[in-house]
Amino acid sequence: MKSNATVSLDHGSGGLASQHLIGELFLKYLTSPLLHDLEDCAVLGEYAGRIAFSTDSYVVDPLFFPGGDIGSLAVHGTINDLAMRGARPLALSLALIIEEGFPMERLERVIASVARSSQDVGAAVVTGDTKVVPRGKADGLFINTTGVGLVSHRHDISGKKAQPGDAVLLSGTLADHGITIMGSQAGIDIGGDIASDTQPLHRLVGAILESETGAVRVLRDPTRGGLATTLCEIAAASHVEIVIEENRIPIRPAVRTACEMIGLDPLYLANEGKCIIICDQDHAEELLQLIRRLPEGRDAALIGWVRDDRPDRVSLVTRIGGSRLLEPLTGQPLPRIC
Amino acid sequence: MKSNATVSLDHGSGGLASQHLIGELFLKYLTSPLLHDLEDCAVLGEYAGRIAFSTDSYVVDPLFFPGGDIGSLAVHGTINDLAMRGARPLALSLALIIEEGFPMERLERVIASVARSSQDVGAAVVTGDTKVVPRGKADGLFINTTGVGLVSHRHDISGKKAQPGDAVLLSGTLADHGITIMGSQAGIDIGGDIASDTQPLHRLVGAILESETGAVRVLRDPTRGGLATTLCEIAAASHVEIVIEENRIPIRPAVRTACEMIGLDPLYLANEGKCIIICDQDHAEELLQLIRRLPEGRDAALIGWVRDDRPDRVSLVTRIGGSRLLEPLTGQPLPRIC
Repeated sequence: MKSNATVSLDHGSGGLASQHLIGELFLKYLTSPLLHDLEDCAVLGEYAGRIAFSTDSYVVDPLFFPGGDIGSLAVHGTINDLAMRGARPLALSLALIIEEGFPMERLERVIASVARSSQDVGAAVVTGDTKVVPRGKADGLFINTTGVGLVSHRHDISGKKAQPGDAVLLSGTLADHGITIMGSQAGIDIGGDIASDTQPLHRLVGAILESETGAVRVLRDPTRGGLATTLCEIAAASHVEIVIEENRIPIRPAVRTACEMIGLDPLYLANEGKCIIICDQDHAEELLQLIRRLPEGRDAALIGWVRDDRPDRVSLVTRIGGSRLLEPLTGQPLPRIC
Repeated sequence: MKSNATVSLDHGSGGLASQHLIGELFLKYLTSPLLHDLEDCAVLGEYAGRIAFSTDSYVVDPLFFPGGDIGSLAVHGTINDLAMRGARPLALSLALIIEEGFPMERLERVIASVARSSQDVGAAVVTGDTKVVPRGKADGLFINTTGVGLVSHRHDISGKKAQPGDAVLLSGTLADHGITIMGSQAGIDIGGDIASDTQPLHRLVGAILESETGAVRVLRDPTRGGLATTLCEIAAASHVEIVIEENRIPIRPAVRTACEMIGLDPLYLANEGKCIIICDQDHAEELLQLIRRLPEGRDAALIGWVRDDRPDRVSLVTRIGGSRLLEPLTGQPLPRIC
C-alpha cells in the first residue's frame, strides 16, 4: 500500500475497490475463517447458555492516545459490556464509517490494533461493514463494535441486584482514561506516566464468577459519566442507597494532581478498564484478595457499602468526614471521550 | 418535547441528559423489557440452533426518501443479511452517532420508524448506544444495527454453494432503491411512482426454506454494487459461471426510463428488498410459484442459470442475443446509498 494512499468514496461502493480494501487490508489482519468467507452474515456454532448481546459506537478524539487507540478501545469496550453481565465473549462485529481522504496508513494501524486486541480476548471479528462518506461529513473514523457472548445459567448479574449490607469494590484506579483524553484534546502535557486504562475485563470477571458463584450481585464498568453516575444508576435500579468513602477510592497521584489543576472531579471522569463489583459482604475480603492477584485488579479496593437508609441515593463520605450527595453527571465535561 | 429542540453534546455524555433522551424518546417507542432494563448488555434466552450475526452501518443521504427512511432501512438491511444465511431474526442492537444540533423531531421520526419496522419483523431492539459529536463532525445521523438470529441445522445456505445446472431466481424488480436515492440526492423528480424497495425478506426466505429444504443453495441480496456485482461475488465464491438473460430481468418501466435518462445501468444500482435465489433446477419452477404468491415476491422471475464453462465469470445475454461479460462495479456511481 502506498504510504500516501487515502480512503476514497470508491472504497465504500461495494464494488471492486471495496473488495480490494477488504482483501488487502482487513483480511490481512483479521484472520477468522468466518470473516474470510465474505458472507454478509456470519454463522457461528450452537452453544449452551444464554446469548449476551451488546453494542457501542466509538467516536473518540484523538484516534490515537497514550495507552491505546480507537481500535483497542472499541474491542475492550464491547468485551467489557459483555463481561458486566457475566458473559464469556464469543465473537465481535466491526463496522467502520470512514471519511473520504482518511490516510490508509492510519486505517491500517487501527485495524492492526483491533486484530491484536480481539486476538488477546479470544473473540474474533467474524463479520463487518465499511461505509465511506464524503470529506467533511464525518471526522476521520468512527467504529461500531457489537459483541455476542454466552452467560452460564449459574450467573444472574444485573444492576438491579444490589442489597443492603453488600460491599462495593472497585477493581482499580479512577479517571485514567478521562484525564488522558482530556489532556490529548487540549494539547496539555499532564505529566507523570498518565495513560488510558483501556483493557479487557473478561478474565477478571471470569475469575470472580468461577470462585464465588452467588456472592456477586452487580458488575458495572464506570465509563461515560464515571463512577458517580454509574453508582447512581445502580442505586436507582436496585432501589438502595450506596455510600462510598473518599479516602478509600484509589486514584493515581498524577491523575489526582491533573484533575485538581484542571478543575475536574475524578468521580465523573470515564474509565475504560475498571469495574464496580457489588457483592455479599461475607465474601468481600476474599474477592478483593482474588482480584488483587490479577494484573487488571492489582489496585482494587473496597470503597463502600450498600444501605437501605435513603433508596436511590449515592453518598460520599469525604476525607474530612462530611457527607456529600452524588448526583448523575449534568453537563458534558468533554465530548468524544470514547 | 419542544418542537424546536435539538440534540446537544450533553445528550451523549452518559449523564442526566443522556438518561432523559433514552427515557423520554427511545423507550417511548422501543418497548422491549430487555432494553428497558437499561443494562449495558442484553441477555437473551438460550436457543437451539446456530447463532447468525451480522452488522451494517447506515449513512444514507437523505435520511428520509420515498418509500422509507434511515430507520426502516437500518432494520430491513440487517434483517435481510441474517435472512440470506437462512436465519430467523432474534434481536437487534441500535447504535446512533448524532451530530450536535440535529432536530429532536427528526430523531423522533427515525426512532418511531425503527420501532415500527422492528415490531413488524418480530426482532426487538434489545440493546443500544448513543454518541453525539460536535457540529460539523458528522452529517446529521448515522445508524448501526447489528442482528442476532438462529439458523436451523437443516439449512446450509452460502455464496459458495452454487452448482452448474442450478437456476438463478430474482425475487422482484431491480434498481428501485438506487434510482430513488439518486433522484433524491440530485433533487431530480424522476417521475412515476418510483420509491425505494426497502422491505424485510425474512418471511419470504422462511417460506422458501420451509417448503424446499436442500433445493436452495445460495441466497444473497444485491445491495451496494447491485445485481451484477453480487453475482460476480457468488460466481467467484462458488467457482462457477453465472449466465443471466437481460429480457428476463424485471425492471419497472419508470425505473428503466429514469436509468436511461441519467445514464445509469440498473444492473449496478442498489436494491434493499430483493434477493437472488440460486436453487436446484428441478425445484426452480415450484419455488418461483411459491415466491410469487408472497407480496415481497410478486414480480419474481427466473433470470438465468449456473454453468461450468467459464468459472468465476458472469455473462449477460443481451436483449438482441449478444453476450456481455459483467464485471464487479468499478468507481462509485453515488455515495451514501445506504
